[in-house]
Amino acid sequence: MSDTIWICGLSGAGKTTIGRAVAARVGYLLDGDILRDGLNINLGHTIEGRRENIRRAAEVCKILNDAGVTVVAAFITPFPELQQLVRMIIPRVKMVYLDVPLMVCEARDPKGLYARARAGAITEFTGVSSPFVPPENPDLVLKEMDINDAVKKILCLLDRS
Amino acid sequence: MSDTIWICGLSGAGKTTIGRAVAARVGYLLDGDILRDGLNINLGHTIEGRRENIRRAAEVCKILNDAGVTVVAAFITPFPELQQLVRMIIPRVKMVYLDVPLMVCEARDPKGLYARARAGAITEFTGVSSPFVPPENPDLVLKEMDINDAVKKILCLLDRS
Repeated sequence: MSDTIWICGLSGAGKTTIGRAVAARVGYLLDGDILRDGLNINLGHTIEGRRENIRRAAEVCKILNDAGVTVVAAFITPFPELQQLVRMIIPRVKMVYLDVPLMVCEARDPKGLYARARAGAITEFTGVSSPFVPPENPDLVLKEMDINDAVKKILCLLDRS
Repeated sequence: MSDTIWICGLSGAGKTTIGRAVAARVGYLLDGDILRDGLNINLGHTIEGRRENIRRAAEVCKILNDAGVTVVAAFITPFPELQQLVRMIIPRVKMVYLDVPLMVCEARDPKGLYARARAGAITEFTGVSSPFVPPENPDLVLKEMDINDAVKKILCLLDRS
């Protein structure tokens, strides 16, 4: 049984960038955008759609871990209910919270999503029109930092398990 | 990118038994019953539920293959539409059809499902009240045979790919 590193945080916090760097060292990156193009293509962005998105992602992590693959999962995971769902489904999970201020994420806006959300083209967008509630007991909180430092800290988390 | 061996056939044909033996040699067994307890716990056995069951299973095979895991998938997959869906989703798939007569499967009835279906307790049960249409161009057809022979033939299929 392998581990899942579950990285949560706002859009633009760097989840995929850091996740990709960690996965290159230890495993496989499961990314929200990729899942939405395949397994979760039939889900919307309503509360129920987002819950099912996270539930399915967590079940896939569990299967990958069971198959011996260390997974790095990158999902916003904005509510306690979703964070708890992840912990409930995946036997060996480490929760990493990228604690990057909204204004920093919005200034980056790598996919132009904040601009579209501010213009009203996306509703219920986390940080703009929908809340982000940080996880209660994350295994690691990363503030803005050098990506190599972030990768090192996450790998330490794996080593300690 | 790794391969998926997709084993289809009636309930009781031996999909899981043969699949487990193959997976013990080369990879990970993705079994319909296990998926129904986790990722697919929210699906019924209607036509639409069965289609979504197969769609999600195939997407998981694709992810596992992408993560470097060879997968052996064991699902009844009773209709051409479902068999084609599998081929469409999984880039590297070998379709194995366990061609075991209904009366043999029903005599085995390892889970007591045929008895329940005949008693009317399960509706739309493949082979009893719902059709099984064999795949059109399977990569391998296995008639009843010794399990070691079956495993060997399936492994040859992988070697040739």
